Amino acid sequence: GSVSAVSAVSGMPPVSALELGEMIVKHIEGKKGLPGYCVGVEVVNGYLNFRVKGQLKKGKDPIHSDTKSTEGTASKATKANKSEFGSISCRAIGVFRSCFKEKYGTPRQGAVARDARGHLELYSWVPPESLEGLDGFSHVWLIFWFHKNTNKVTSAKVSAPRLNGGKVGVFASRAPHRINPIGQTLAVVEKVDISAKRVYFSGIDLIEGTPILDIKPLHPAEVISRQDVRFPSWITRPQSVFKIRWTSEATQQLKDSIESKPQTHFQDFNQMKRAISQSICLDPRTLHSKNKHAHGIFGIRLDGVEVTFETFGNIAKILKISNASNDKETETKGTRRLKGLRTKEWLERTKRELKL
Amino acid sequence: GSVSAVSAVSGMPPVSALELGEMIVKHIEGKKGLPGYCVGVEVVNGYLNFRVKGQLKKGKDPIHSDTKSTEGTASKATKANKSEFGSISCRAIGVFRSCFKEKYGTPRQGAVARDARGHLELYSWVPPESLEGLDGFSHVWLIFWFHKNTNKVTSAKVSAPRLNGGKVGVFASRAPHRINPIGQTLAVVEKVDISAKRVYFSGIDLIEGTPILDIKPLHPAEVISRQDVRFPSWITRPQSVFKIRWTSEATQQLKDSIESKPQTHFQDFNQMKRAISQSICLDPRTLHSKNKHAHGIFGIRLDGVEVTFETFGNIAKILKISNASNDKETETKGTRRLKGLRTKEWLERTKRELKL
Repeated sequence: GSVSAVSAVSGMPPVSALELGEMIVKHIEGKKGLPGYCVGVEVVNGYLNFRVKGQLKKGKDPIHSDTKSTEGTASKATKANKSEFGSISCRAIGVFRSCFKEKYGTPRQGAVARDARGHLELYSWVPPESLEGLDGFSHVWLIFWFHKNTNKVTSAKVSAPRLNGGKVGVFASRAPHRINPIGQTLAVVEKVDISAKRVYFSGIDLIEGTPILDIKPLHPAEVISRQDVRFPSWITRPQSVFKIRWTSEATQQLKDSIESKPQTHFQDFNQMKRAISQSICLDPRTLHSKNKHAHGIFGIRLDGVEVTFETFGNIAKILKISNASNDKETETKGTRRLKGLRTKEWLERTKRELKL
Repeated sequence: GSVSAVSAVSGMPPVSALELGEMIVKHIEGKKGLPGYCVGVEVVNGYLNFRVKGQLKKGKDPIHSDTKSTEGTASKATKANKSEFGSISCRAIGVFRSCFKEKYGTPRQGAVARDARGHLELYSWVPPESLEGLDGFSHVWLIFWFHKNTNKVTSAKVSAPRLNGGKVGVFASRAPHRINPIGQTLAVVEKVDISAKRVYFSGIDLIEGTPILDIKPLHPAEVISRQDVRFPSWITRPQSVFKIRWTSEATQQLKDSIESKPQTHFQDFNQMKRAISQSICLDPRTLHSKNKHAHGIFGIRLDGVEVTFETFGNIAKILKISNASNDKETETKGTRRLKGLRTKEWLERTKRELKL
């Protein structure tokens, strides 16, 4: 499989910059998604480009169109106009540190929890001056990599949560499972710390560890009015699914928790309480867990705490806040979760503790 | 140089999908931009990823941070959280056919000429079903590759046209010369032709031949109101620089031109006339040509015609419309232009013809 192909090369010694090296890669024919075979590799501007010939696994035609790599210089690009462009390689400029620790509980579909917080840490090779002037903007686009995708193939159509399992073309959706796993999200700039090479954001829907490819300030031409925009009927502005109720115990636990252990992303109790309410009111549950446990007990992580809540109809009641133990993820039957969260054992323990 | 490195591999015979092959690439140390040396290559989901160790050319620190490639599977991504992500490779899904034939004359800075037209042609390997449901949206984001970049290095700061040569951090700008040469633009969907795998757009600012990486429908959460947004004082919504006047000769020539030769992107005279006026009123001239020829004669291509105009103060007068001869680009002193357009000979010939 492709994993063994990775292992086969990952132990190799570094190759010098002057002789980039000899790389032998095996491709698992047809079994693992997109295109076919490589007919050339080149390095331009430090990027590794490749020419490829091949076919989309899910495509119906046996296609042998020539695809051609260009490297961003005009003469090459002009020559390539008549055939296909190959690929560009993108480097992450940094990593996103988020109050959302796993996919479960992270807002979907561009819905943003206004008080959700996170920051971007630029990598050491990115010069700090690249952030100068960014603080003049209230909003920026973060271009990121959907690094938590587990799909091995890209489908032409994807399930839209609002269509109750119905499918639409991948280009009519914002699904993470795309031909190019690039995402785009609007975030509010809270603070730009140039010397620390960090940018702090609110209203974010990115998961911990997301590789960021670019920051683009929102341009005035992108602020368009509601009446000029048309959406399909199945798309609506994200709305609260639940009314949130906090038990007095949970409220006190959140206070105690913040006092006993500083949070990474939240400074004060009220801000964090709002972020928890906002995250849960959008309904973080998966279609699967919703169907299986229409009324039930669920848990999410937000920053350094674990939040336990119960749903009844349109009410979500926050039952318990506890310090999260660690960030380790475990995998059971293809579902990854933070260690111990939402397992059978977790549920039984929680019910015992809360005497439910 | 990197071009010879390309030549060194471009003639090699295709390698089968089962043994992707042995690729030897030479890297031009330090001279050509971003990072350093390759320590591993892998193919996952048909994408070629690579691990890289190195440094940004323009960075000030000698950096040898480990960068690590992951391939979008969770276990790898989790492991990589503590070090740097390497790169992802993106494939163009198709090519953009635009009424704008060269950089000169193509709207800048996200400003869009409402009547500008173009269409996306998806490549043969992209299934047509991927477009289903797209026609329900009035606006989409096109994620594209800045393939006409000629920069060999990426700078931390870039010139902002509105700052009269002043510079801002690259992440506070929408300049095409970015660490990852990915662009994002909002376009109006005019027609989705699923069987032909074409999507027709208006209000576009993309140049002919732009490789498109993704189509993302505009999400309601991205429609924000003007009063919630803050921009630096040097950013303003793009406004007309020129009032446009058409000579009766030019108007007649446009009519004749459309009748004698069908246009690719425009159906009727009025639509095309508006697009020409919109493109010129935003001031297509470069800072250089503006300073050198404050009052002068300029030419742009739009679809199949060449437009000659003259500027006086805040007036641009459309003097002449002629059928464009061909799309060939020529290069003089680092400036690429469509063949014959805006050269000294072109200017002299134009002045003689128009008796100026």
